[in-house]
Amino acid sequence: MPKLDLDTIPQTNATGYPPPFDAPVAGRWYRRLAPASGLAHMGVSHVTLKPGAWSSQRHWHADEDEFVVMLAGEAVLIEEDGETVIRPGDCIAFPAGVENGHHLQNRSDGDCVFLAIAAGPRDKGGSYPDIDMVFRPDGYFRKDGTPYGASRTA
Amino acid sequence: MPKLDLDTIPQTNATGYPPPFDAPVAGRWYRRLAPASGLAHMGVSHVTLKPGAWSSQRHWHADEDEFVVMLAGEAVLIEEDGETVIRPGDCIAFPAGVENGHHLQNRSDGDCVFLAIAAGPRDKGGSYPDIDMVFRPDGYFRKDGTPYGASRTA
Repeated sequence: MPKLDLDTIPQTNATGYPPPFDAPVAGRWYRRLAPASGLAHMGVSHVTLKPGAWSSQRHWHADEDEFVVMLAGEAVLIEEDGETVIRPGDCIAFPAGVENGHHLQNRSDGDCVFLAIAAGPRDKGGSYPDIDMVFRPDGYFRKDGTPYGASRTA
Repeated sequence: MPKLDLDTIPQTNATGYPPPFDAPVAGRWYRRLAPASGLAHMGVSHVTLKPGAWSSQRHWHADEDEFVVMLAGEAVLIEEDGETVIRPGDCIAFPAGVENGHHLQNRSDGDCVFLAIAAGPRDKGGSYPDIDMVFRPDGYFRKDGTPYGASRTA
């Protein structure tokens, strides 16, 4: 059945972020739709942000494209150029290699729901401009290259 | 600005389908979001189907993944297993190489709006199970290999 039954796909708030960077994403609950549906050439996360939660630490990807569409509720997009309220139907694109750190914050008093879709190589990872962390396929590291000892899961 | 201003992105109902296969998609109006936003590793179409319009002829892709999320209104998904009503927030996945011809029909009396996202190779094309047509990167052909003489645009 091509239509996905979201309720049957496991939902988690797991993260590989080391403390204290994990705290803001504790209220990020997501389902990985691609492995559940057999898609191999893109990643699709169906994400619910509880009030106060962030989508991630502010980050950019060196070699992977990212696309977000808001489905319900409201969040604030934070990026180098400032803040933008994102509402249902709004589309956001982050081309690979553009070093514009971005994330969503749910500053409302209700849940918001969005899809985050990624495609392209994942060889180079990316960086978090606000904190002393980068990501690579093999995990999270300080900007001097020392590992955090946490594996990368999200 | 990562948030897309959809109104500034050209909208078209162009198709490369030869007659009479073009008629059902005349009411399909779409914007190509990836070239407008710099995404290189996925295709993103923001599609409005007028009442009566189809998303495409029923088709499948040999080597490209396809993912659809409904944003507004309602359509009927037609695939080998039958018909399913698709409503806002519903997600549909079509993994590459699964020969399950599919499309959406807007049988309602209002517009419906969805995103169709594709990623992966586009070397092999695919087929239309209901009609004498296949698609390849270089255009549309009858199943005996003779070209229709129309270039592939959508």
